[in-house]
Amino acid sequence: MEFSIIAQDRSCGARRGRMMTSHGLIETPVFMPVGTHGSVKSLTPDELEDLGAKIILGNTYHLYLRPGAERIARLGGLHAFMQWNQSILTDSGGYQVFSLARMRKLQEDGVLFQSHIDGSRHMISPEVAIQVQMQLGSDIAMCFDECTPYPVTRQYAQESMQLTVRWAKRCKASHTLPQQALFGIVQGSVFADIRLACLEELVNIGFDGYALGSLSVGEPKEQMQVILETLTGCLPDSRPRYLMGVGTPEDLVEGVRHGVDMFDCVMPTRNARNGMLFTSWGSIQIKNSCYVDDDQPIESGCDCYTCRRFSRAYLRHLFVSRELLAYRLNTIHNLFYYLHLMENMRKAIDEDRFEDWRRGFYRQRQ
Amino acid sequence: MEFSIIAQDRSCGARRGRMMTSHGLIETPVFMPVGTHGSVKSLTPDELEDLGAKIILGNTYHLYLRPGAERIARLGGLHAFMQWNQSILTDSGGYQVFSLARMRKLQEDGVLFQSHIDGSRHMISPEVAIQVQMQLGSDIAMCFDECTPYPVTRQYAQESMQLTVRWAKRCKASHTLPQQALFGIVQGSVFADIRLACLEELVNIGFDGYALGSLSVGEPKEQMQVILETLTGCLPDSRPRYLMGVGTPEDLVEGVRHGVDMFDCVMPTRNARNGMLFTSWGSIQIKNSCYVDDDQPIESGCDCYTCRRFSRAYLRHLFVSRELLAYRLNTIHNLFYYLHLMENMRKAIDEDRFEDWRRGFYRQRQ
Repeated sequence: MEFSIIAQDRSCGARRGRMMTSHGLIETPVFMPVGTHGSVKSLTPDELEDLGAKIILGNTYHLYLRPGAERIARLGGLHAFMQWNQSILTDSGGYQVFSLARMRKLQEDGVLFQSHIDGSRHMISPEVAIQVQMQLGSDIAMCFDECTPYPVTRQYAQESMQLTVRWAKRCKASHTLPQQALFGIVQGSVFADIRLACLEELVNIGFDGYALGSLSVGEPKEQMQVILETLTGCLPDSRPRYLMGVGTPEDLVEGVRHGVDMFDCVMPTRNARNGMLFTSWGSIQIKNSCYVDDDQPIESGCDCYTCRRFSRAYLRHLFVSRELLAYRLNTIHNLFYYLHLMENMRKAIDEDRFEDWRRGFYRQRQ
Repeated sequence: MEFSIIAQDRSCGARRGRMMTSHGLIETPVFMPVGTHGSVKSLTPDELEDLGAKIILGNTYHLYLRPGAERIARLGGLHAFMQWNQSILTDSGGYQVFSLARMRKLQEDGVLFQSHIDGSRHMISPEVAIQVQMQLGSDIAMCFDECTPYPVTRQYAQESMQLTVRWAKRCKASHTLPQQALFGIVQGSVFADIRLACLEELVNIGFDGYALGSLSVGEPKEQMQVILETLTGCLPDSRPRYLMGVGTPEDLVEGVRHGVDMFDCVMPTRNARNGMLFTSWGSIQIKNSCYVDDDQPIESGCDCYTCRRFSRAYLRHLFVSRELLAYRLNTIHNLFYYLHLMENMRKAIDEDRFEDWRRGFYRQRQ
């Protein structure tokens, strides 16, 4: 995977990059919609393309359990299976094993757990996580890590980070798919020095990109900011930087400001299905009765399909009637908002006016 | 509303017609997808147009309760509200009052009932049903009728039919929207002579079209066939004939054979959401494990979006994972099947070979 920086904002860490995978060019900073079960919920691949998505995230844990990675490999890989011809990043399953699976048991070798679907017993090791991601055929694979919960003691964070580093070595050793990039994941909870030690070890192993894991897992925003500032100053300039599972529009803006290149989050899609819609002045709950007679679009001037065609009154009606179309139209709007936000940030960096743009972003939300 | 017959098959009752509403031309025989709450479940209006739908059905009872017909009128009518620019037929609410509402009380004046949503008390009379449909601004409105259950005694059927006729007179008298057609509904259960008496009375009142109601409500298929044969022989040739709430692909074929011009049914859309998919050789359950590794489309040669893009294995995976996209892709396929079936029948009538075509239809299903 090729990656190059094409512009660097002079007043902050924000940077513009280009990633080239075997499925195409990705302009960074980029947001990756989440397609957990091989589908970004409610949307077709064509709609995702129309929205301008260039890379989506697939969940290794879910696809490993159902329909199974070998099956997807037999059917031509995840791209062919879900008919998405742009890039895919797969996570390692680490986060889901710790958040979804039952009866999990952490060992040096890997994690024993029971499926949240049917209780069947499984073991994901670094080697299994890599094998599964190679079978899925994603463009970017992630190392299997222990997703450190919050809060933990310093000692726990230290030992957990060391396990993640040992696992990262095994991931790298078992990864044999040349056209698939492999990213390392920096752990260490809210302890900046542990994070920096982790990063140093990972850089020594050598990965195609570096991710910050276990942020936005409950720690105060200020602690996340500190980690972000400290770490982004030390991440290798020449490799993509990925802030996992983040976040709100404000989180994206602050991440970009500190030089993050990649984000993923379920927020735009999940919140859409709960009726929460993003606008440039904040978010709205479409079910609120104030929209019952409102013939305006979600946001005037928004160029998404939903805003070009439908009124808040209609969207509210669909949502309170639990119509399937509601989830879909809301998802289109929210993903458009997120992808458009990234596009605006890329443009601002290109024109070396990111801080100006950022002030405007916050002014609109007051 | 203009209606003309442009071809009549010589070997059976099948006929080709053209209906012109203020929202466009409709080639008949036609199938109308059901859009209960102002949405054909899971689809956008653009997808419906791409599927070739020219007219859809909206449910007066549902829209009257939520979001309310006055509200829809203020927002520009049902077409503008849901952004559907082709034709709409609204039912009268009669069927739903009898099948969904609680604590209903039938009186000469109308039906008192409690909303199935919130228990609120309402009264739908013929005048209210017409007023609501005029507010919705549909292209075709239906008279308010008593939807006769099955089975009933001859006396019940007779009295119910007479009430429906008295209501039909009141509907006609209160209908004042010139660009909206008004159809009468023939009742009388499985008693052909009562149905014929009803038809005679309705023709005397004079409507833009005539519907057969309360068929496919539990009576044996043969009894429905007898009513269909007897009645279609007597319905005015020059007006559209609408077989309400019907039915299976076979029902459509037999209806067309007897000269029916219009159909509506939730079967293609509801069954899609239950994973039942129509093909020319019968239906399949996509959740069946035989499809787990099947890389073929639902039906080879089917030109619908779903079959052009996705495998049975992927559709099965989406369905068992309860992904929203499953309901949508299944709905697209099933509606394409129904609308394509109608198109094939229209073509066969145009070419005066309907009975030949019909034999081929059944041969494929053996």
